[in-house]
Amino acid sequence: MSDWNTIRFCQFGAGRIGHIHAETVFRHPEAELAGIVDVVPDAAEALALRFGTRALRAEDVLEDPSIDAVIIASATHTHADLTERAARAGKAVFCEKPIDLDMARVDACLTVVAEQGATLFVGFNRRFDPSFAALKERVANGDIGRVEIVSITSRDPGLPPVQYLETSGGLFRDMMIHDLDMARWLLGEEPVEVFAFAQALVDPVVDQAGDVDTAAAVLKTASGRLAQINNSRRAAYGYDQRVEVFGSLGSARAENRTATSVEISTEQATRRDNPLPFFLERYQDTYRLELDRFIDVLRGRSSTYPNGQDGRMALRLADALLESHQTGAPVVV
Amino acid sequence: MSDWNTIRFCQFGAGRIGHIHAETVFRHPEAELAGIVDVVPDAAEALALRFGTRALRAEDVLEDPSIDAVIIASATHTHADLTERAARAGKAVFCEKPIDLDMARVDACLTVVAEQGATLFVGFNRRFDPSFAALKERVANGDIGRVEIVSITSRDPGLPPVQYLETSGGLFRDMMIHDLDMARWLLGEEPVEVFAFAQALVDPVVDQAGDVDTAAAVLKTASGRLAQINNSRRAAYGYDQRVEVFGSLGSARAENRTATSVEISTEQATRRDNPLPFFLERYQDTYRLELDRFIDVLRGRSSTYPNGQDGRMALRLADALLESHQTGAPVVV
Amino acid sequence: MSDWNTIRFCQFGAGRIGHIHAETVFRHPEAELAGIVDVVPDAAEALALRFGTRALRAEDVLEDPSIDAVIIASATHTHADLTERAARAGKAVFCEKPIDLDMARVDACLTVVAEQGATLFVGFNRRFDPSFAALKERVANGDIGRVEIVSITSRDPGLPPVQYLETSGGLFRDMMIHDLDMARWLLGEEPVEVFAFAQALVDPVVDQAGDVDTAAAVLKTASGRLAQINNSRRAAYGYDQRVEVFGSLGSARAENRTATSVEISTEQATRRDNPLPFFLERYQDTYRLELDRFIDVLRGRSSTYPNGQDGRMALRLADALLESHQTGAPVVV
Amino acid sequence: MSDWNTIRFCQFGAGRIGHIHAETVFRHPEAELAGIVDVVPDAAEALALRFGTRALRAEDVLEDPSIDAVIIASATHTHADLTERAARAGKAVFCEKPIDLDMARVDACLTVVAEQGATLFVGFNRRFDPSFAALKERVANGDIGRVEIVSITSRDPGLPPVQYLETSGGLFRDMMIHDLDMARWLLGEEPVEVFAFAQALVDPVVDQAGDVDTAAAVLKTASGRLAQINNSRRAAYGYDQRVEVFGSLGSARAENRTATSVEISTEQATRRDNPLPFFLERYQDTYRLELDRFIDVLRGRSSTYPNGQDGRMALRLADALLESHQTGAPVVV
Repeated sequence: MSDWNTIRFCQFGAGRIGHIHAETVFRHPEAELAGIVDVVPDAAEALALRFGTRALRAEDVLEDPSIDAVIIASATHTHADLTERAARAGKAVFCEKPIDLDMARVDACLTVVAEQGATLFVGFNRRFDPSFAALKERVANGDIGRVEIVSITSRDPGLPPVQYLETSGGLFRDMMIHDLDMARWLLGEEPVEVFAFAQALVDPVVDQAGDVDTAAAVLKTASGRLAQINNSRRAAYGYDQRVEVFGSLGSARAENRTATSVEISTEQATRRDNPLPFFLERYQDTYRLELDRFIDVLRGRSSTYPNGQDGRMALRLADALLESHQTGAPVVV
Repeated sequence: MSDWNTIRFCQFGAGRIGHIHAETVFRHPEAELAGIVDVVPDAAEALALRFGTRALRAEDVLEDPSIDAVIIASATHTHADLTERAARAGKAVFCEKPIDLDMARVDACLTVVAEQGATLFVGFNRRFDPSFAALKERVANGDIGRVEIVSITSRDPGLPPVQYLETSGGLFRDMMIHDLDMARWLLGEEPVEVFAFAQALVDPVVDQAGDVDTAAAVLKTASGRLAQINNSRRAAYGYDQRVEVFGSLGSARAENRTATSVEISTEQATRRDNPLPFFLERYQDTYRLELDRFIDVLRGRSSTYPNGQDGRMALRLADALLESHQTGAPVVV
Repeated sequence: MSDWNTIRFCQFGAGRIGHIHAETVFRHPEAELAGIVDVVPDAAEALALRFGTRALRAEDVLEDPSIDAVIIASATHTHADLTERAARAGKAVFCEKPIDLDMARVDACLTVVAEQGATLFVGFNRRFDPSFAALKERVANGDIGRVEIVSITSRDPGLPPVQYLETSGGLFRDMMIHDLDMARWLLGEEPVEVFAFAQALVDPVVDQAGDVDTAAAVLKTASGRLAQINNSRRAAYGYDQRVEVFGSLGSARAENRTATSVEISTEQATRRDNPLPFFLERYQDTYRLELDRFIDVLRGRSSTYPNGQDGRMALRLADALLESHQTGAPVVV
Repeated sequence: MSDWNTIRFCQFGAGRIGHIHAETVFRHPEAELAGIVDVVPDAAEALALRFGTRALRAEDVLEDPSIDAVIIASATHTHADLTERAARAGKAVFCEKPIDLDMARVDACLTVVAEQGATLFVGFNRRFDPSFAALKERVANGDIGRVEIVSITSRDPGLPPVQYLETSGGLFRDMMIHDLDMARWLLGEEPVEVFAFAQALVDPVVDQAGDVDTAAAVLKTASGRLAQINNSRRAAYGYDQRVEVFGSLGSARAENRTATSVEISTEQATRRDNPLPFFLERYQDTYRLELDRFIDVLRGRSSTYPNGQDGRMALRLADALLESHQTGAPVVV
């Protein structure tokens, strides 16, 4: 890919996250949005129109040698297939997490990616949150010494629709997977054993859907570093996204972010803002920052990014925790 | 102005603040950037090129009936003249503060604006800072009862170049004018008497330039409400921009904003981020939000905005404080 | 016990925690310190002298009908025996935790206490920390709805001497037992299953002593409420003692306390105080407040206090977590 | 005064602040409370009884060579007279502020104190607040470079009874005097010119009593350092006591203190504690810490303390600000 040309992107998927990625590519000075593909042609048309590009068919994109990279933001069950096809067509791939909900399918996909020598960037956008990224940098810098415990609080503001839950893969693979990626990234070592307690406490409908909505997980690495994660599908006060790392020389924490810094003190109490409401607000900057990184990788300016192995390992941990929940025993990874 | 058409803007000025406004107009879905004017034709060309528009001469803009509105972001001494010409040409005017450094000139300009029935929006962008705007809304809502004291801390990160100081109009008219607008806006009443102590403490060069770099001002309204402002041209830890309002039922404060929420605790101390470094970072969102408001005003969707009288009164207070500093006595406004 | 008389206390134990209790009793307006017993007569003498009382032998205390209550602050292995003897002698008992490190011994002791109808107050002083007590009150009040997750961070500033570790009963029974009491108290339900990962990460000497210094535990109640606890014997930045409770309507957290509210902002960062250094500073008020409660219980003004069953259950959970750590499996309580 | 003996104190005044000082002396290991004097003999008796001492007449105290020091906590108009008599009797004097409300009377008193070579410690207890003391230490240490601006927010929770106002000397001499001492102490230079705006905004009854309840003052030192103080007799949210110092290398602030560290987040907002309610809670530790210092001074272990000149200068500034308020002009000190 030449250094002086704009990188030409096409995107699969014109849903909510697709809108975000399309706009991000559209606004990026080094990127060009060359087309949108969606199983619903009208959705592709509408999104293409909005950002001055065209609706295309998948084969048009894959056969067009002028397309450098694809963004896969379509339904989860299409990710692995599109990733393989794009890799075979010589495109660089940005794939929304998860690669697939089935580990065997992920492995097969990563084999193709490896055979093709393709770049596969997995959309673990939280790594690009400015607070988490700064925390990681300080930890990597040794500011808190050797890492001993990683603690993650991650709570969604409210229960998604039941239909969503039914195809989501469940709390561990749909929601905690983000936290598992964060835990791996911050531990600096692979977890080798995991355990979880989980329950449907928010709404019985979750239990009926065969899922849980509340969980507490613990992870252990080979050298004995520990991580703990607590998840809930509901936080009445907003999107609760916090990380702490404890090390031999200190600790680092990233608190929630708020829309304003206003505090009101009256006779009753001093009140301040709740956390930002949900991921679109809290992680707004990450979509741009992860695209910057993807482009840096394509330009050879960086080689650090959440790749296929990261996607695979987060799913592996999610599967292990689900198994732990189902069997009631710790699971060796 | 029709509701269904894009509003066509031209802009005077292609400097630093001009770049921000041009990009903001360029990105706004209801606005079109139709041309850039600058005394340095190359600067106008470069900025026009960047945002897909043309460099124009002032007369082209003013004589073109398809131009709905102008943004005046040129040198201060051109503001009043351009405002008058644009008003006479039937354009709506967004003028960067100050309208002029000379009160008589401001008055003459406002007379023309009034005669023409023109919309004049003055760029007191801090009113659109999300934290300050939320604070104002709570205060206006009565959450803290009757306002009694407004307290403003406003400190720049470092001394500007001496050349800047020499044409700036001095600390009161260049820097404190923002805080004076905030004070008026939050007091909900006009100050009628003011007093200031001021000094060059940061650098003797400031004194040689006939200016001060450190000031503490007090203001009083007719009913006895008070305001206090402290200013410095230097804050080693970043751009310090805080507001507090004390009322009969409580208080409201807006603290500084930081880039991240990270805290690091080691044996020595717990450290967190300093405030954002300067106005481009702290007030980044305000340029978009004030343009939104200007467009809302042009569309008839809002009638609340910093107008010519606001620009005039802030300058009036700045002049009075400068006089107080020079004479050593309080000044009745 | 008559309402108008001072309550007469004797105390067993003249060590560090003994000094605190003796002074607290000495200063309490409704209490009288009538004597000190210690296996080292000089220690008893010195402490008695300091607070204007006498050194006594255990039998003197237990046979003296004018003594209303005893404080047991002697070595752990003497607690159960002294509790039984005091209960049989008709004294009310305040016993430092744990009652004993052996569950069978605890059970035997509690049987004697029950047969005698004695009051047994166990020194879980953290329940009396003003922040934790206020948090509990809000939670009990329903401010955050139904409790779903309790999360406790509890880290000592540094490793105790190895000799201490060797007789301490180990991290779970010596350190986490406090957090287990907090978890039970805040969950509002008994944990029925527990799991822990633990390791010696701070110092290999801990491993050599057959103990761990770092742990992450998860607990589950019958209805599926969850708790997570992380412990470390070292926090370079001070004594880290925090509690969070997540409920259906919100969350409640109690942060660390600091010696001062000072923040210093310089070019590098904004720095504030670390947490108070250790339990004597952080929990300073709790010794007085728990004595107040003990006296309220003896006066019939309160019936809520950490009792023998609380002491027993915290040990039961600590034993279960130790077993989980040793077997690598979850343990049903 | 011998190093090995207890220092024998007598106290004048058995009112509210008298209770605090008497208890503090009673509990101090190096002090003995040898007697209480009050114009109301029953009040002296009651307080003496409570702390195991005797009610005495003033002459008994002054003529008793075994008395080393006196605490003057009686009505303000008696301070100067008792200070002089105690100084002449060779006693060290701890005098509650103010020495007197009349400057000439203060000067006469200080002349006597100087002639006698007596130690006169004035009870500016805020200097001993752990947060303010730590802030002062950091500033004195050079952590924030050269001091440029001191900013003090000082608000009482509510209006005192009108009778109190009438004999208080008014807001400047009764309330702001504490802040003026803080300003002098933190500026590190004497203010040479001052100005104030003030008003009765809280209650018209204050105006009828010839006083104000709301004020904003500015001070300037010879080298141009500035201070600003805002006062109100009412803060619905508690006792608001904050200090900030801005220097060439940074800033230092001391925030309010709260009873607990609890935060509750619900759908509406995140709420935390208000500041501690009033001076007895906020400045609880200062009475012990200032007595420690007084005793250190008497023992020759320290020579730094708020002395007669400090008492005089704070009153001088209060008088000047009252004059500024009354004349509407700045006042040179």
